Amino acid sequence: MAVGNHRQRLRDIDNTGFGANSSIEGGRLVNPDGSNNLKKRGIPVWERTSVYHTLLRMKRSHFFVFVLALYTCINLFFAVVYFLTGVEHLVGGDGSKTFFGQFMEAFFFSSQTLTTVGYGRVAPSGMLTNSIASIESLIGILVFAVMTGLIYGRFSRPRAYLLFSPNILISPYKDGKAVMFRVATYKNNHLTDVEAQVTLALHVKENGKTVTKFYPLHLELSKINSLALSWTMVHFITEESPLYHYTKNDVMETQMEVIVTIKAFDDHFSNIVQQRTSYSYQQVVYGAKFLPMFERAPGGDYTVMELDKINAYELVQMPEHVEA
Amino acid sequence: MAVGNHRQRLRDIDNTGFGANSSIEGGRLVNPDGSNNLKKRGIPVWERTSVYHTLLRMKRSHFFVFVLALYTCINLFFAVVYFLTGVEHLVGGDGSKTFFGQFMEAFFFSSQTLTTVGYGRVAPSGMLTNSIASIESLIGILVFAVMTGLIYGRFSRPRAYLLFSPNILISPYKDGKAVMFRVATYKNNHLTDVEAQVTLALHVKENGKTVTKFYPLHLELSKINSLALSWTMVHFITEESPLYHYTKNDVMETQMEVIVTIKAFDDHFSNIVQQRTSYSYQQVVYGAKFLPMFERAPGGDYTVMELDKINAYELVQMPEHVEA
Amino acid sequence: MAVGNHRQRLRDIDNTGFGANSSIEGGRLVNPDGSNNLKKRGIPVWERTSVYHTLLRMKRSHFFVFVLALYTCINLFFAVVYFLTGVEHLVGGDGSKTFFGQFMEAFFFSSQTLTTVGYGRVAPSGMLTNSIASIESLIGILVFAVMTGLIYGRFSRPRAYLLFSPNILISPYKDGKAVMFRVATYKNNHLTDVEAQVTLALHVKENGKTVTKFYPLHLELSKINSLALSWTMVHFITEESPLYHYTKNDVMETQMEVIVTIKAFDDHFSNIVQQRTSYSYQQVVYGAKFLPMFERAPGGDYTVMELDKINAYELVQMPEHVEA
Amino acid sequence: MAVGNHRQRLRDIDNTGFGANSSIEGGRLVNPDGSNNLKKRGIPVWERTSVYHTLLRMKRSHFFVFVLALYTCINLFFAVVYFLTGVEHLVGGDGSKTFFGQFMEAFFFSSQTLTTVGYGRVAPSGMLTNSIASIESLIGILVFAVMTGLIYGRFSRPRAYLLFSPNILISPYKDGKAVMFRVATYKNNHLTDVEAQVTLALHVKENGKTVTKFYPLHLELSKINSLALSWTMVHFITEESPLYHYTKNDVMETQMEVIVTIKAFDDHFSNIVQQRTSYSYQQVVYGAKFLPMFERAPGGDYTVMELDKINAYELVQMPEHVEA
Repeated sequence: MAVGNHRQRLRDIDNTGFGANSSIEGGRLVNPDGSNNLKKRGIPVWERTSVYHTLLRMKRSHFFVFVLALYTCINLFFAVVYFLTGVEHLVGGDGSKTFFGQFMEAFFFSSQTLTTVGYGRVAPSGMLTNSIASIESLIGILVFAVMTGLIYGRFSRPRAYLLFSPNILISPYKDGKAVMFRVATYKNNHLTDVEAQVTLALHVKENGKTVTKFYPLHLELSKINSLALSWTMVHFITEESPLYHYTKNDVMETQMEVIVTIKAFDDHFSNIVQQRTSYSYQQVVYGAKFLPMFERAPGGDYTVMELDKINAYELVQMPEHVEA
Repeated sequence: MAVGNHRQRLRDIDNTGFGANSSIEGGRLVNPDGSNNLKKRGIPVWERTSVYHTLLRMKRSHFFVFVLALYTCINLFFAVVYFLTGVEHLVGGDGSKTFFGQFMEAFFFSSQTLTTVGYGRVAPSGMLTNSIASIESLIGILVFAVMTGLIYGRFSRPRAYLLFSPNILISPYKDGKAVMFRVATYKNNHLTDVEAQVTLALHVKENGKTVTKFYPLHLELSKINSLALSWTMVHFITEESPLYHYTKNDVMETQMEVIVTIKAFDDHFSNIVQQRTSYSYQQVVYGAKFLPMFERAPGGDYTVMELDKINAYELVQMPEHVEA
Repeated sequence: MAVGNHRQRLRDIDNTGFGANSSIEGGRLVNPDGSNNLKKRGIPVWERTSVYHTLLRMKRSHFFVFVLALYTCINLFFAVVYFLTGVEHLVGGDGSKTFFGQFMEAFFFSSQTLTTVGYGRVAPSGMLTNSIASIESLIGILVFAVMTGLIYGRFSRPRAYLLFSPNILISPYKDGKAVMFRVATYKNNHLTDVEAQVTLALHVKENGKTVTKFYPLHLELSKINSLALSWTMVHFITEESPLYHYTKNDVMETQMEVIVTIKAFDDHFSNIVQQRTSYSYQQVVYGAKFLPMFERAPGGDYTVMELDKINAYELVQMPEHVEA
Repeated sequence: MAVGNHRQRLRDIDNTGFGANSSIEGGRLVNPDGSNNLKKRGIPVWERTSVYHTLLRMKRSHFFVFVLALYTCINLFFAVVYFLTGVEHLVGGDGSKTFFGQFMEAFFFSSQTLTTVGYGRVAPSGMLTNSIASIESLIGILVFAVMTGLIYGRFSRPRAYLLFSPNILISPYKDGKAVMFRVATYKNNHLTDVEAQVTLALHVKENGKTVTKFYPLHLELSKINSLALSWTMVHFITEESPLYHYTKNDVMETQMEVIVTIKAFDDHFSNIVQQRTSYSYQQVVYGAKFLPMFERAPGGDYTVMELDKINAYELVQMPEHVEA
């Protein structure tokens, strides 16, 4: 109760892009991977899908299955076309007489044309077959342009490669408590001008209705020059915090969600990169603090960061006056 | 009249990039697709056309017709060259004796060279023909470099994919009225740091001449962190608004135009995207309000946005004191 | 003299990146195309040249000569290699017995391998020749990767496409005078958030030495939302201007140079573009004003911008009190 | 001592991304090439390595060895596959009967397929071999897409091309002393809106422990419009400086490190570029000043910058009152 009364003094914000009506929104707002927990409908799927975005973010294995399937389909299509327009116009080859053998000849000729490998052992003859082959090699170039562009685009897509601690802690801090979570780059990339924006969403009862309230969470340090080591983000729960007087019980009751956006400049991409995540109330650990995750190298001439310790924490007793 | 007198107290702006003289500007300033309603002349068309911009923004069907036409033209050109320099230097082939048959042999050889498929059933012999084929394969690589680059460039071009409500409403709002329109992303893209800039253009009589006056339209919220759901942009018509005392009649008379620019950061492109649109006076609906366009999913664990309801509104009675 | 005394009250700036010592700088500071009038030396040319920058900005005709020359050189090199390792390992072909004929056979085989067209009429046999051909086709792919990348890079390079008026005018303005020049986009591109920064360089005598003094030139409008029409940049010469009391004679004497940088966001590239230029004292027209360069289209439904009028001006009498 | 007492009045900063505990950090913080002196571990090497970043920043010679090795490995792999599935299905060729000769035939056929050169002298026959060749040509296109993308990516990667003076000087300046170092672009690139951020790290004893303290170093000029000539960055050591009362001895004792980040806009890339470096205490020259590095060209119409003089300095006597 105390927390609720206190919170009414604070201004919540309405520029989060989410609505305030908890009853028409379902579940958590943002997924742990940073996407919104939302589906669109009302216009056909092909109009509301960006093929580019989909192929760029598809799992790697799915993407390669897709490429292989596309390659096979185009070849099948042209094999049928060559077959229908007369497989005898494909001169050379093994001279198979069976239906299946002839179809496969057409299929492999198609694949040799599409990839422009063009051995020539089997080659087109006659106007029609030559024209089809000519179009197919053009299509091959254009299709592979998109495919190769996509592969390189996937490979070189600017990404922040940030590893977030899977849990968010409520820890003793100074003479009170603080919300803490930790982030580090887990690849050989280097981020500078790193900025974090943290928004708290609480589902609270107001006049009998459940409404979603948003508050900015002020960090002790919200911008750093260089993300060299790990960065522990600390929101000190002062009187100005929407979490003042917030108890272990309230975490569950208000279905607290913490939405984190990190923006930085990546040296190698020479580009701004961004990563989002969200902590739901199930990920909160009440009464714990992080353990250090880097140390001096044995030789003493460089520093070692241990990424497997990103979530290393120990449970601690909250100071009594804090829980009062 | 009242609206005119009131407006004179307000400062109009001159940094819109448009001129103030209505008599030398024709029709609306900005088209609904965001382009300026303007033509350039005075220098040759090839100097004032960016081929890149044109090919990047051309309709997809037109673009593919263009690629096919270019491919055919280059092949025709080289077919003529091979024909003139002696088609007998293309050894192999069907050995056609007719003029047309020989020309097509040259044409298909050209296409096999240009795409570098090079079956080799027909192959060049002799200095001259070999040289031409050598140049053609180089040209093929260079031309297809541009084509494939363009195809991928078109495919991956950073775009905001914003769906604007086709109408702009003047709705009852608080104890007065407001200008409202709605926007949502219609693809599986995700925009953050979304910022809107709205400019109002009015064509008003001043000393007998019609001049164009520009005013910034202040929004209740002009920047949001994340465009997760739809965003209804609201300009509350207060005393500080150029539309104070503005009646249904004035919309038509001043040929009101509302120019909207939205800038955002796209997560997947890691790039800033921008989209513009413009509402002309014909698109204004006076006395209407938008209906909600999202709801909780049946299962309750996510939210559904219905894009076909982007323009869903109902006509409402304007409160009387507002119309006074 | 008056102008000199007046100017001493004003603060000059030292953050232009140019030095203040006129005696060690030669000629104008910035060329009309925006490059610095400067040469570097002291480290080898290949270390101080960015091949990428050079090839990206080379004239189009030079670039294609470069590509053709490179193609020929690589083919010549490999022709020599095939020749030296035994041209008899290239089976097929015309079976020429002359030295020249055999060399050209090797040359054309090389070009067929480099472009991966590989007709196969001439084909490698034996370990050594096969290995060389295998390496050559790899090199072909890698070299053409860079070439095609460059061609597309040249084609799609974000550029502002700004047309500056060749002259800079000193015109009567309000009750005084102003420095004016004009800019417009000359292609079908569209710039938003356009910002101009103008710096004045004057070479003045101080204690017997000629020093270069830099001043920012304040514009009546230094940022516009959209460069839809032409934009006349106006520096009103007030008491706060370094050009106050500046006469026609001073233009020549101080070798006045006006350095202009324009930065904008391009809608289609979704990128920031920048263009620089510089006006030297020879380009100044004292006592002139620009004529309009756009008008309503005959049909009245769009506006026409006449780019050939970018520099259209008429000579005018300066008001007498201004020249006093 | 004096310096220590003085420094305690100044606020150090904690937003550098480095920790304050000298005992767990090893050696210098930032390497001269701008990378952090840090290793990551705790997750498998393939998860903490961005292949893209690694290949993009690899030395050029290493990169080409990598490409060649990859090409050879893929060919070896497919040669084995063709061999195992029956080399007799590769028709044509030299008809070698030896094991090695047959294997090389398969190897070269593989390379002709991978690069899509496909001479066709050796060609696949039969279902299985045709299928493998069909897959190989697809793989070839995909692998080379990444390779050629990388080559062009390496070639066109936005870089600042900044040359820093290898030494950092402590020079007499005005009536005191200053920290100075010098930077220039060494290629034909052009940077505008150049901004420098300089951080000082000192390892000092506090309560018996060695801690790392960070201070921003204020520059006389921290932003310039255009990096046309060289730029000497000057930190004047005033009472507000953490280096006030700092002696030659202190340089060594505190293991002073100066971390420099320069961010700028590159005209040709139309992109923001960034370069970092760090000066450790071994690079400090106490009592020296830079000599000029540019002059007017002999003809007098341009300026010459001598890049080999970037570190040209002369030792000078520090004024006595400064050392007091």
